[in-house]
Parts: sequence; structure tokens; C-alpha cells
Amino acid sequence: MKLYDRSGFPNAGRIRVVLAAKGLDELVEFMPVDVIGAEHKSEAFLAKNPSGVIPVLELDDGTLLSECTAITEYLDNLDGQPTLTGTTARDKGVIHMMQRRAEAELIDAVGHYFHHATPGLGPTLQAHKSPDWAHRADWGRREGERALRGMRYFDQILSGRPFVAGESFSMADITVFMGLAFAEVAGLAAPADLTSLAKWRAKVADIPSVRSRSGQTLVADDLRRLGF
Amino acid sequence: MKLYDRSGFPNAGRIRVVLAAKGLDELVEFMPVDVIGAEHKSEAFLAKNPSGVIPVLELDDGTLLSECTAITEYLDNLDGQPTLTGTTARDKGVIHMMQRRAEAELIDAVGHYFHHATPGLGPTLQAHKSPDWAHRADWGRREGERALRGMRYFDQILSGRPFVAGESFSMADITVFMGLAFAEVAGLAAPADLTSLAKWRAKVADIPSVRSRSGQTLVADDLRRLGF
Ligand SMILES: N[C@@H](CCC(=O)N[C@@H](CS)C(=O)NCC(=O)O)C(=O)O
Ligand SMILES: N[C@@H](CCC(=O)N[C@@H](CS)C(=O)NCC(=O)O)C(=O)O
Repeated sequence: MKLYDRSGFPNAGRIRVVLAAKGLDELVEFMPVDVIGAEHKSEAFLAKNPSGVIPVLELDDGTLLSECTAITEYLDNLDGQPTLTGTTARDKGVIHMMQRRAEAELIDAVGHYFHHATPGLGPTLQAHKSPDWAHRADWGRREGERALRGMRYFDQILSGRPFVAGESFSMADITVFMGLAFAEVAGLAAPADLTSLAKWRAKVADIPSVRSRSGQTLVADDLRRLGF
Repeated sequence: MKLYDRSGFPNAGRIRVVLAAKGLDELVEFMPVDVIGAEHKSEAFLAKNPSGVIPVLELDDGTLLSECTAITEYLDNLDGQPTLTGTTARDKGVIHMMQRRAEAELIDAVGHYFHHATPGLGPTLQAHKSPDWAHRADWGRREGERALRGMRYFDQILSGRPFVAGESFSMADITVFMGLAFAEVAGLAAPADLTSLAKWRAKVADIPSVRSRSGQTLVADDLRRLGF
């Protein structure tokens, strides 16, 4: 299979951790997408994913999968032994609920802040971000506030359980972890009083599948090139 | 288990179809939530779902599940015989991708249009919809345009396959179906040239689990009371 993504980007990082956790790296050919040059907004890429975002997984039969949750469901169930998406009905339910919250209240909110309330990845991509909508920076700032509220929510959750969706590491932990890394780069570091979140983060950073990717979890290199 | 929802609301309807498809109605006690009176924004309800939306499923062990995708994963896997969320890795991936698109590009977009660019459910709830954000109507209108683009996307998908995620009826069909019903009520009826979408819609309306809910799929009664 082929993975269209960009090393160092937060949603790309989610899937790279999944690949490491499932031992599937060998099966994947990585196809770099020039996100800073807005290649993901080109007609050729939109034919792969009409939502115009990475990552996209292309299966050997040509099936195109986008959305990290969907890609994770696929990869986690390939061997019939899911470890990241739950095995019982209850676990599947809780994991999917927390995954959705980790997206809406954290990683997606940070993305909206980054791309709309800051210069984001620079002028080429900015031209694609609702250029005719005068109020986008205002909306982006509100999404930034939402991400900070999201961190507070996850801190509270993690004061009562070891992982985001309960007793075991799951895809929801990966999403919160990458959301926090992205937030830091975007200038929305987690407030220091969120100690349960900080303790959980240190623990997750040390899980082998996460640790093996730690050089790849930040957009730092690309941002440096842009002069941030 | 208890289902906190409101008969006739589109996301509530998604879960009611799932219950019918899985034959689980008998196991559920329905707990009506006064959405027009903004009961879902009260402290008591936010303790059940911090996102402040219905539906919420409360399991007998006290576990609270919100987000239709998560609730559907739970209900569909209870008997170990999933029929709406996929059985193979590939099907799970495609169904989750299309489910996410059906939300972002249709039913959620219609919701944002309805609540922000129109009077929505009336003044009590409007007071909770970003009251200090002057540009929310502008944003809501853009979400309405997004929903219309979403319909066009699903029309094109359905010109090439019998159901939204492929050969079989899945949770993604339920979401698109309810999204279209909601859109109609909100004044965003599907354009007449989307003939593949229309044919699919007539076919889905006739599926027993959907047909059994057809009196409940619209917010029409509540809206009439508000004088729409
Ligand atoms: N919901 C999507 C989010 C993907 C996403 O936002 N990807 C980012 C990269 S980390 C992207 O492509 N951003 C480019 C843009 O927003 O233009 C998923 O789960 O895959
Ligand atoms: N993503 C949520 C959406 C739920 C949703 O938007 N529910 C509507 C009712 S159909 C709601 O509670 N609306 C009230 C509001 O937005 O204030 C899900 O999948 O459950």
C-alpha cells in the first residue's frame, strides 16, 4: 500500500504511530506530499481525497482511505487482532467517542487556529484557506480557545484513568498526543497546571510505537524553513 | 440502557434507525431532552455529554456514550454480528471514512447552517450559539454551501455504487439519509439534478429499519410549534 503524507505533520504522525504499533511499516511505500506548496489542494490530490488533507492510504486494490480514524480502523483490523480500536462493544464505543472528542476539541481545533489565526504554513496555502472570508482569523482564535478548553477536559479525564479511553492505550491517546505536539508548535502550549495531562504525556512518549516516531511528531523543520 | 434524545431530531433519528436495524428497541428506555428549551446546555446534561448535544446512551453500568458513530459502534457490536459498521478491515475503513464525510460535509454542515444562519430552534437555544460572535451567520451560510457541495459529492458517489460505502447498507447511509431530511427542513433541499442521490434516497426510505422510523425523521412538529 501507499501512504500519501508528509513526515513531521501531526495527522501524518498519528498514522505513523499506528503503523509502528502494528508492525506494518514494511508494507507501506511513503509518498511525500508538498503540503507547504499546497499540493494537497491540486486536482490530482483532490481526486484521491476530496477533503484536501493528508494522510491518504491507497490499498493495493486501488481503494483510497482518508480520515485517520478510518485508516486506523483498517490497519488495526488487518491482522484480525485489533489493539487500538477496541475489542468489546463497550470499548469500541468509548474509544470512538474519545477519538471524536480528541479531534473536534483538540487536534482539529489547533489546526483551525494554526491555519486561520496565524500565518500557518505560509502564503501559498493561506490562499486556499477561505480567502474571501474576512472573519476567518476571528473564527481561528475561537478554535484556539476551544483547544485550550479541550486540554482542560482531557486533563480532568486523565486524573481518573490511565489512558484517554480507559485502562488501555488506544487510537484516542495517539490523537491527543499529536494534538498536544501540534498545539505547542502553533503557540498553544498546555497550561502548566494540567498536571494529569503532563504525566500521561510523559508516559505515552515512552511507549515504543510513539517513541520510535518522536523525531517525526513536530512540523518544526518545515516551520523553521518558513522562518518561524 | 437509557437513550437521552428527542424524537424527530436528525441525529436522534440516526440512532433510532440503528436500534430498529439491530432489533434493540426493547432494551432501551427513552429519556426525552427538551432541546428547544436548551436542556442539553444545562449543567446536568453537560455532565453527561460535555459537547452539549443529543443523543447520549447511558449503559446499565453507568458508562455514557455520545457521538452517533461511537453509539453505533457499541450497538452494532453488542451481538458480535456487526451489520452497519463493517466486518472486514477494508469495509470498516471505507464505512468510517464515508461516515465522517457524511457528518462533516452534510449533516453537521446543515446543523451549523440551521443554528447559525437561520433562527434555528428559536431564541432560548440561539442564546447559546456563540452569542458574542458577530460573524456567526456568515459562517453558517458557508456551512450551508458546504452541505450543498456535500450533496453533489454523494450524488456522484451513488452514481457508481448502490450504497454510500459500497455494496451494502451501512451507518454512512443512515447519516446521509438523515442529513438530507434535516437539510429539507432547514430550507436546503437537494437540487433536482442530483438524480442518483434521489434514487438512492427512495430505496433507503423503503428499508424496513428506516421505514419504521419515517414518521420520526423530521423536526417538523417542533418547528411548527415555533411558527416556522
Ligand atoms: N480529519 C482529518 C484531518 C487531516 C488534516 O487536517 N491533515 C493536515 C495535516 S496534519 C492537513 O492536511 N492540513 C493541510 C490543510 O489544512 O490545508 C484526518 O483525520 O485525517
Ligand atoms: N456529532 C454529534 C452531533 C449531534 C447533534 O448535533 N445533535 C443535535 C440534535 S440532532 C443537537 O443536539 N443539537 C442541539 C444544538 O446544537 O444545540 C453526534 O454524532 O451525535
